[in-house]
Amino acid sequence: MAANRGVVYLGPGKVDVQSIDAPKMENPAGKKINHGVILKVVSTNICGSDQHMVRGRTTAPKGLVLGHEITGEIIEKGSDVEYLNVGDLVTVPFNVACGRCRTCRDQLTGVCLNVNPGRAGGAYGYVDMGGWVGGQAEYVMVPYADFNLIKFPDKAQAMSKIRDLTMLSDILPTGFHGAVNAGVGVGSIVYVAGAGPVGLAAAASAQILGAAVVMIGDMQAERLQHAKKVGFEPIVLSKSNKLEELIAAVVGKPEVDAAIDCVGFEARAHGANGEEAPATVLNSLMAISRAGGKLGIPGLYVTEDPGSKDEAAQHGNLRMRFGLGWAKSLSFHTGQTPVLKYNRQLMQAILHDRLPIAKIVNATVISLDDAPQGYQDFDKGAAKKFVLDPHGELRKAS
Amino acid sequence: MAANRGVVYLGPGKVDVQSIDAPKMENPAGKKINHGVILKVVSTNICGSDQHMVRGRTTAPKGLVLGHEITGEIIEKGSDVEYLNVGDLVTVPFNVACGRCRTCRDQLTGVCLNVNPGRAGGAYGYVDMGGWVGGQAEYVMVPYADFNLIKFPDKAQAMSKIRDLTMLSDILPTGFHGAVNAGVGVGSIVYVAGAGPVGLAAAASAQILGAAVVMIGDMQAERLQHAKKVGFEPIVLSKSNKLEELIAAVVGKPEVDAAIDCVGFEARAHGANGEEAPATVLNSLMAISRAGGKLGIPGLYVTEDPGSKDEAAQHGNLRMRFGLGWAKSLSFHTGQTPVLKYNRQLMQAILHDRLPIAKIVNATVISLDDAPQGYQDFDKGAAKKFVLDPHGELRKAS
Amino acid sequence: MAANRGVVYLGPGKVDVQSIDAPKMENPAGKKINHGVILKVVSTNICGSDQHMVRGRTTAPKGLVLGHEITGEIIEKGSDVEYLNVGDLVTVPFNVACGRCRTCRDQLTGVCLNVNPGRAGGAYGYVDMGGWVGGQAEYVMVPYADFNLIKFPDKAQAMSKIRDLTMLSDILPTGFHGAVNAGVGVGSIVYVAGAGPVGLAAAASAQILGAAVVMIGDMQAERLQHAKKVGFEPIVLSKSNKLEELIAAVVGKPEVDAAIDCVGFEARAHGANGEEAPATVLNSLMAISRAGGKLGIPGLYVTEDPGSKDEAAQHGNLRMRFGLGWAKSLSFHTGQTPVLKYNRQLMQAILHDRLPIAKIVNATVISLDDAPQGYQDFDKGAAKKFVLDPHGELRKAS
Amino acid sequence: MAANRGVVYLGPGKVDVQSIDAPKMENPAGKKINHGVILKVVSTNICGSDQHMVRGRTTAPKGLVLGHEITGEIIEKGSDVEYLNVGDLVTVPFNVACGRCRTCRDQLTGVCLNVNPGRAGGAYGYVDMGGWVGGQAEYVMVPYADFNLIKFPDKAQAMSKIRDLTMLSDILPTGFHGAVNAGVGVGSIVYVAGAGPVGLAAAASAQILGAAVVMIGDMQAERLQHAKKVGFEPIVLSKSNKLEELIAAVVGKPEVDAAIDCVGFEARAHGANGEEAPATVLNSLMAISRAGGKLGIPGLYVTEDPGSKDEAAQHGNLRMRFGLGWAKSLSFHTGQTPVLKYNRQLMQAILHDRLPIAKIVNATVISLDDAPQGYQDFDKGAAKKFVLDPHGELRKAS
Repeated sequence: MAANRGVVYLGPGKVDVQSIDAPKMENPAGKKINHGVILKVVSTNICGSDQHMVRGRTTAPKGLVLGHEITGEIIEKGSDVEYLNVGDLVTVPFNVACGRCRTCRDQLTGVCLNVNPGRAGGAYGYVDMGGWVGGQAEYVMVPYADFNLIKFPDKAQAMSKIRDLTMLSDILPTGFHGAVNAGVGVGSIVYVAGAGPVGLAAAASAQILGAAVVMIGDMQAERLQHAKKVGFEPIVLSKSNKLEELIAAVVGKPEVDAAIDCVGFEARAHGANGEEAPATVLNSLMAISRAGGKLGIPGLYVTEDPGSKDEAAQHGNLRMRFGLGWAKSLSFHTGQTPVLKYNRQLMQAILHDRLPIAKIVNATVISLDDAPQGYQDFDKGAAKKFVLDPHGELRKAS
Repeated sequence: MAANRGVVYLGPGKVDVQSIDAPKMENPAGKKINHGVILKVVSTNICGSDQHMVRGRTTAPKGLVLGHEITGEIIEKGSDVEYLNVGDLVTVPFNVACGRCRTCRDQLTGVCLNVNPGRAGGAYGYVDMGGWVGGQAEYVMVPYADFNLIKFPDKAQAMSKIRDLTMLSDILPTGFHGAVNAGVGVGSIVYVAGAGPVGLAAAASAQILGAAVVMIGDMQAERLQHAKKVGFEPIVLSKSNKLEELIAAVVGKPEVDAAIDCVGFEARAHGANGEEAPATVLNSLMAISRAGGKLGIPGLYVTEDPGSKDEAAQHGNLRMRFGLGWAKSLSFHTGQTPVLKYNRQLMQAILHDRLPIAKIVNATVISLDDAPQGYQDFDKGAAKKFVLDPHGELRKAS
Repeated sequence: MAANRGVVYLGPGKVDVQSIDAPKMENPAGKKINHGVILKVVSTNICGSDQHMVRGRTTAPKGLVLGHEITGEIIEKGSDVEYLNVGDLVTVPFNVACGRCRTCRDQLTGVCLNVNPGRAGGAYGYVDMGGWVGGQAEYVMVPYADFNLIKFPDKAQAMSKIRDLTMLSDILPTGFHGAVNAGVGVGSIVYVAGAGPVGLAAAASAQILGAAVVMIGDMQAERLQHAKKVGFEPIVLSKSNKLEELIAAVVGKPEVDAAIDCVGFEARAHGANGEEAPATVLNSLMAISRAGGKLGIPGLYVTEDPGSKDEAAQHGNLRMRFGLGWAKSLSFHTGQTPVLKYNRQLMQAILHDRLPIAKIVNATVISLDDAPQGYQDFDKGAAKKFVLDPHGELRKAS
Repeated sequence: MAANRGVVYLGPGKVDVQSIDAPKMENPAGKKINHGVILKVVSTNICGSDQHMVRGRTTAPKGLVLGHEITGEIIEKGSDVEYLNVGDLVTVPFNVACGRCRTCRDQLTGVCLNVNPGRAGGAYGYVDMGGWVGGQAEYVMVPYADFNLIKFPDKAQAMSKIRDLTMLSDILPTGFHGAVNAGVGVGSIVYVAGAGPVGLAAAASAQILGAAVVMIGDMQAERLQHAKKVGFEPIVLSKSNKLEELIAAVVGKPEVDAAIDCVGFEARAHGANGEEAPATVLNSLMAISRAGGKLGIPGLYVTEDPGSKDEAAQHGNLRMRFGLGWAKSLSFHTGQTPVLKYNRQLMQAILHDRLPIAKIVNATVISLDDAPQGYQDFDKGAAKKFVLDPHGELRKAS
């Protein structure tokens, strides 16, 4: 492990695979740690939130190593790691969490108080998330390993389902968190905004939670076709700017039990050629939610959006139809998903063949070197979830 | 009961006490019902949300009989009322609820699906809430009586605490709902925005829920003095437009465990001479809430606010700093309080001398005829909660 | 509707179909009511808890009309019934509930305080449950109809799924309540004790709640074969008196995430030729539950069991290994299921083809006149759920 | 810290203060650890569950160093301890927990899976709880310190309330857990069985949770007098074997909203000269609980009780009137309290003068050398909670 290579952000629209430092057993402040492990990265996915950086919509610095969706094999461990061993295959939550602060003790690992001096919450390879090196690389260091990692019980079995299990690091728990927060349960009528990978994961989550009907809306035809193919009701947003009518056409009334925003701040107005309109999704979900309902909002909203055309939105201000939400007694549930709250149970569902998430999000394995192409294709809206395979092990496994 | 008198809205800034129809056993559509009771009103309070109408900030029609905070004695009952009797003294939730629809069965009586053809949720004497006649009157009809009403177990005991018990119809459960939704528990550091009656009720609720520190902020000196007198930490909003700093000055850091918005859409910017700025309170609460926190929002936000200076706000649109809330993983809990979810337990707390709410909100008994003066004084910000006494029974009881 | 016929209990081991009174709009105390409806019974099922009476294990009086699992069409309604109409096809929860007391308001309709003078909780056609006439009959009266009944949205669609929908009156919500109480969620490893209809319904509920593995144990081969056929892991209790070992043989360790007791007080010791041993199931579930787990206990335990061989059990006393449960921090969740808490969502799951409960419990339609034979076959352990079809409508529909 | 002294169990009825080993940075298996701290013990309390051992009711080996209620100052820390420093004053939960297993991540630190090879759950100085050395000593080692410990924010302030804060290690959270599990909330009518320190802590917890009435029952006059003095309603169990009647005499009906068992397996039958009867408390709580209620059971029930006169009870079997509990839809909540779930918030309540727990449990400070006398007095039922003061710091502070 003398050498390491990773996907590096080089400025708006540009990423490249370059030589990077080998991971060290130290935190971003340079302090030596004993609670970390070094992983050989077995799989690592490109995420929609990486795109926000790559599109230049954030203040991400050039040179940042990307990647927060990581699955890997332990090749080295610190002296304080007691319950994991070299050779274990593990899933890594995208949140870096200490397991020792008030919020971690409360299972709110998305807002750990210790891993990011700038604010609550840390992540690998992400701007303003604490400076932890990303994992779209051959090797990566994971701190607080006993707390953060979950070991797959049987390595061979896990490798046979690795395209599914790789989704445990982020999008599957993120979609699930959205569904749980929206109050999805057995028999629910559900609408998911956004048919990208997180949207599909939310739809799959609604399904396994027992939903009666799962609709999923998007502007893009290719994504909707894929959503339909894997069993969800597509809602073609380009057809109308009245989401209520599109919903009513499917379920007979303009109302759902549970609504999930898997789009976030780069939302576009509905109807043909919709312009960017950051509050569109939220406002449309208020319109279709039943009285007393809950909105699950895993889609990212940012504090600063310097690239927005809307001046208010540049400072994270949205024009929300909050009065409508209030009149319907809605609640709104936001924030980074605390992956550890859900990944064990979702792993069990995958291992017992109940959740074919790879197929649902159209997992597409590519080499680390093809990552730049993957970023481009994904940005164009390919109905695919790109999984990088730094050591060729996924291609070997299949 | 041939005659009846009540407080009638006559246009912006004008209310009067007039002769009104005697209550009938029928619903607003004119259908005869058997599940109602006629009450002799023992006490009925003026509410801050009545002010929204009287100030002309709503589309309330002239002639509307006001009043949704009602306590009374049953003087007549329909044939379907099985568990209440003539002579019972009862508390009336401000929500009209059928007890038979999906949301009522789920305890969400604030958004009953059957009592208001216009939208979910009904109330007495309120614009767009189903047309039920208000109770700032000598007599009033309450439908679905077995479901909606709670009888005080001992009439004499109840009359001796009637100034407290009269708060069960609205503001005490409303403040409590805000506190519960904000996640207030034993040991919490709490901030309540707004030192009017609902704010004080939220503060009292936080107190009985075990809060360690209860701060309450307002622009108005008289209200803050009263808040301090009854045991809460006053936060003088006119001093600074940085709520964080005011909070830090009390608890040593610019953060609270739980935050409650008891102001609503008529909020003003903080600092001296703040102008109306509908999202100010919400945005400031996001700033001070701890990561992973919850905002309880009993303060009213409206779908239409024709009287607003802000054009967006006229249609219920607010400029919310939602990105900040998202970054902190906050949740937002809105809507009319389902009073029935809380009033029994709050009644018990009052009857056993644990919750001196009358003193806390400065209950001030006046005659029905003095209601117009009460409206005026309250509008000027008097640190008082006006309780109307249509039959002189409160003044007799004390 | 001048005439009526129903299944009548005639003493231990004896039931017969006889002429009975036409249903009246009055409660068991003889008081006239306006809130009831008369149903033409479309389907009504034989339940395991009926068997307790028929076996003579209770103090049920001769002449009692049996039946608490009822689906029917409204043919007459009282003047206070506002949201249902003649002609509506409705599902009837087995609990009689007033919808107006403290526990009903809290969704605990299984322990309604008003419908049974003897204790909390009422049911149709059941000893000590308030004296409401049973529904294994051609016609039956249902009180508090607006509160208790749920109308199927489309009658023709409902008739096409009536074998499934008939399970909404009791066993499906009962199994679901057990699963929910046991903490079953996505990815859970679940064990259900008892492969009768409630056990199968609990297993089906675990499945739709997202369980990873659903095991179901019984002494009886026919039931286990059926359980396997419909997709669950059979646990052959006659093979061993160590449930831990049987579980470990399936999932690799002697522990489950969630355990559900669908047997109740007539439990038998495990192993070949097990004698009746009322605490066996509870004790074995404590042994296999994970630390911190929850036991869902929909299986019936009685306050008095005059027919028991165990003297202590005659007074409802069990020899429970409570110390073991305490050491593992378990919780125990008992009682009649509040059907209304679940039946709407389960109906939606059935109507949208997500829950083929008829197939899972092996619904077997017979005529009203064949009820006595059904009771006998069921008592012998037939792997069937008998559905009575008093008017031949189910046979017509198929 | 070369020398150390501690309270040592020497056989039934015998404890002594002896020289013991200085604490080492290693776990009971002898493995060196980096995540621990060595504490100078500032206060450490004698607990009722220590009495079970000292009375010879367990298999505790001679030579065991007692003590699991510990507050102390860090004098040494391992290299992996990142968020605590030498000099910090900390409260130690009685549970030893790793903070890294499934149950710890779920806040169920009472059943940690890693700290006790024999079963789930560890504690200091307790039989069968993992072999961690007890803290009724001058010095003690605490593992997984960042996870387990909570630092008092201000040392001087903390020393001024140290008699209260010392209750955070066990009895206050234990009583609180019982109250929370029993569903105590604002306005509840509560009964606590047992007026020892845990019972008083449960009563104090019910009070701060907003209970309307808090009754507490015991056989012993001195304890009841104390309970009355600190504000609770005493229930004199020696007066009657009908708890229902005693309850009705106070609140007018034989029923409570919430019931808490703070007695456990050494219960005695009610009435004068009651004999030991292990299920008495549980059965009496079922009798008085309202339908749909919850029983909080912090009182200890053991898997093996070799010293019991009842043969069944020797193996942890109780004769429970479970049928009655089932008929009332009760739930039963057992197990060791996960202290970390509650101690931060209770600390805040103490620091802000809302919970005078020292006064309520009658905290009585004695020297380490007086511990044997303290054990004797406590065993006789002294209405005191003994706090050991190994370094004379509490006596200095007052």
